Amino acid sequence: MNRMPATAGQGRLTLWEGELCNPCPSSGRASLPRLRWALLGSSGTLRSRPGRRAGNTRHRPRSLCCRPHGPGEGRREGRRAPPARHGSAPAGPAGRSRAVGGRAAAAPRRVGMGLELYLDLLSQPCRSIYIFARSNNIPFEFKHVELFKGSVLGRKAEGSGAEQPRAGPSNSEGAGKVSLLKKVPALKDGDFTLAECTAILLYLSRKYNTPDHWYPSDIQKRARVDEYLSWHHANIRANAPKTMWIKVLIPLFTGQPLPSEKLQEVMEGLSTSLKQFEERFLQDKAFIIGSEISLADLVAIVELMQPVGVGCDIFEDRPRLREWRRRVEDAVGKELFFQAHEMILNIKELSNIQIDPQLKEQLAPVLMKMLK
Amino acid sequence: MNRMPATAGQGRLTLWEGELCNPCPSSGRASLPRLRWALLGSSGTLRSRPGRRAGNTRHRPRSLCCRPHGPGEGRREGRRAPPARHGSAPAGPAGRSRAVGGRAAAAPRRVGMGLELYLDLLSQPCRSIYIFARSNNIPFEFKHVELFKGSVLGRKAEGSGAEQPRAGPSNSEGAGKVSLLKKVPALKDGDFTLAECTAILLYLSRKYNTPDHWYPSDIQKRARVDEYLSWHHANIRANAPKTMWIKVLIPLFTGQPLPSEKLQEVMEGLSTSLKQFEERFLQDKAFIIGSEISLADLVAIVELMQPVGVGCDIFEDRPRLREWRRRVEDAVGKELFFQAHEMILNIKELSNIQIDPQLKEQLAPVLMKMLK
Repeated sequence: MNRMPATAGQGRLTLWEGELCNPCPSSGRASLPRLRWALLGSSGTLRSRPGRRAGNTRHRPRSLCCRPHGPGEGRREGRRAPPARHGSAPAGPAGRSRAVGGRAAAAPRRVGMGLELYLDLLSQPCRSIYIFARSNNIPFEFKHVELFKGSVLGRKAEGSGAEQPRAGPSNSEGAGKVSLLKKVPALKDGDFTLAECTAILLYLSRKYNTPDHWYPSDIQKRARVDEYLSWHHANIRANAPKTMWIKVLIPLFTGQPLPSEKLQEVMEGLSTSLKQFEERFLQDKAFIIGSEISLADLVAIVELMQPVGVGCDIFEDRPRLREWRRRVEDAVGKELFFQAHEMILNIKELSNIQIDPQLKEQLAPVLMKMLK
Repeated sequence: MNRMPATAGQGRLTLWEGELCNPCPSSGRASLPRLRWALLGSSGTLRSRPGRRAGNTRHRPRSLCCRPHGPGEGRREGRRAPPARHGSAPAGPAGRSRAVGGRAAAAPRRVGMGLELYLDLLSQPCRSIYIFARSNNIPFEFKHVELFKGSVLGRKAEGSGAEQPRAGPSNSEGAGKVSLLKKVPALKDGDFTLAECTAILLYLSRKYNTPDHWYPSDIQKRARVDEYLSWHHANIRANAPKTMWIKVLIPLFTGQPLPSEKLQEVMEGLSTSLKQFEERFLQDKAFIIGSEISLADLVAIVELMQPVGVGCDIFEDRPRLREWRRRVEDAVGKELFFQAHEMILNIKELSNIQIDPQLKEQLAPVLMKMLK
């Protein structure tokens, strides 16, 4: 079965989950110059990068900027600027991959180490890994992966039955070869490669012996983290990203907005999950496992920021959830938090771009089916 | 939001995932005497247990039988009997809960320990925990939970917004109070309670220091287990159980079979996942992480036995998968494997039972929506 049809509930077309190779139309390319620019910054690998920020390195998205920022620098319309944290964003060379982090990184430097992380910060799991590595000063090379360009919307490898990311300058030196699952996030540590967000987070926590609170050695607290990470898949993760599909991506590819009932249905589903999240996991605690942040909180927060990016502020009427979010931001550092989320919080820019008509024709029915 | 609508993709109605409390119609009771009998064996808690095996303790389902079996004993129509493994099924008292296992259990005994596992062997995750605990001789009390009777199809607790399992003799002494998520499988270890299959398996492996191969201390092998466990959710787990819904449960509740295209679509989705499973996880290895069985194999196999139970033998034309299954069976012991799976391999009996018309009316549209 070389051709794998994309059907709801299996082999999901999951741009926002960051799959590089799942079933999808086999050809066609997205024309997303502004997004590409945002992804690549001033790397110079972009074939076309029009737009108001082209060539303006000062205002390139903070998420891809390597310089430490002062308050307000890099501020964009309608978004607050996070406070500066000196040394939290070490400088590095502009390019497709950059060395960031370092156990005690405080100054611009190039770290020559084996660990590479293949990420696209549009993807929630990628953001959780990025935040975790950065907040723990784990040294890694940031390998940019272009979900839109070289993977899900890219070419199908002959006879493979799966989408293969294109190697080459536009796709981070062949990121697809790195991951067993040909997905992002992907980790490469010497000869060892790893996919799946949870697996990567746990691997990093073990290898770099990160502070205990992330994945506690206490058997019961650890079990609570595991419990959330497992529950997460079919609840928060299954619901939150749909808001993005409905409000941005499906209109983008189909050329028309979905009925409001569809969004309402999705929001009801998300509300149910959030209610369980608050009542059964968060309860009256500061974080899911108690008084300290853990991997469970991190995995949850990045997912819950997707709706916010499209104007569905799920925190607005939920004070307990809002306070938890604030505590998570504080725990990882507001600057890092907003740096990781800057692109997703400006995702509405996507609605202005032009999509290849052939691509629209291919993707529209698949997308519609996903939300039946 | 007290009333949580059951919609596809959120708050899923997941009998076969074993949820006790997820959104579903709030009242009505299943009348499944034969199934109940199968669940309860000769425990004496069944209100009605007609059928050919009523009162026949010799031939009660092996999954709930505490005595060691000889070859062929307990054989049922159309099913092969597993070879006997002396001492692998220690005897215990008949009743709602039974003590099984024990680190060196070889003879009938009653173990008075704190660990309780709330299980329904119709649920795949429950089976994986049952097999893991038994094959590692972990002492536990088997607490029967009746998914059909007292939970998903049971009463909604007033104002709770969630289904509460009924306490009392028909529902394992209030299993719903045990689990944070009010789901099965659930673990109770003294005052500590835990839900979610993966979390429970990991907790047991740590607490009872099970052999290393289950969850290797080697950081890379462990990451491979984590990688599979994460991938599993949206792939094997998302696809395999649908066969059961289509072939047994939806016809049971709606009174009519689904179009064959629907099954074909589900089978295509499952094929895609199986192809990835073989090519990306199993490869040419004996097990997912190499030469020994791990939690990843166990979590996978129980899910892949659901289709087999309804006549979709996914192993038939997949020699690599078939050989892997054989190795998994050998690793945990064929007797234990078939003991755990006996009910699901006889699930077709469900098609003969009568369902409360009111329950049909409530559930049919929900079930249909799940498979849109």
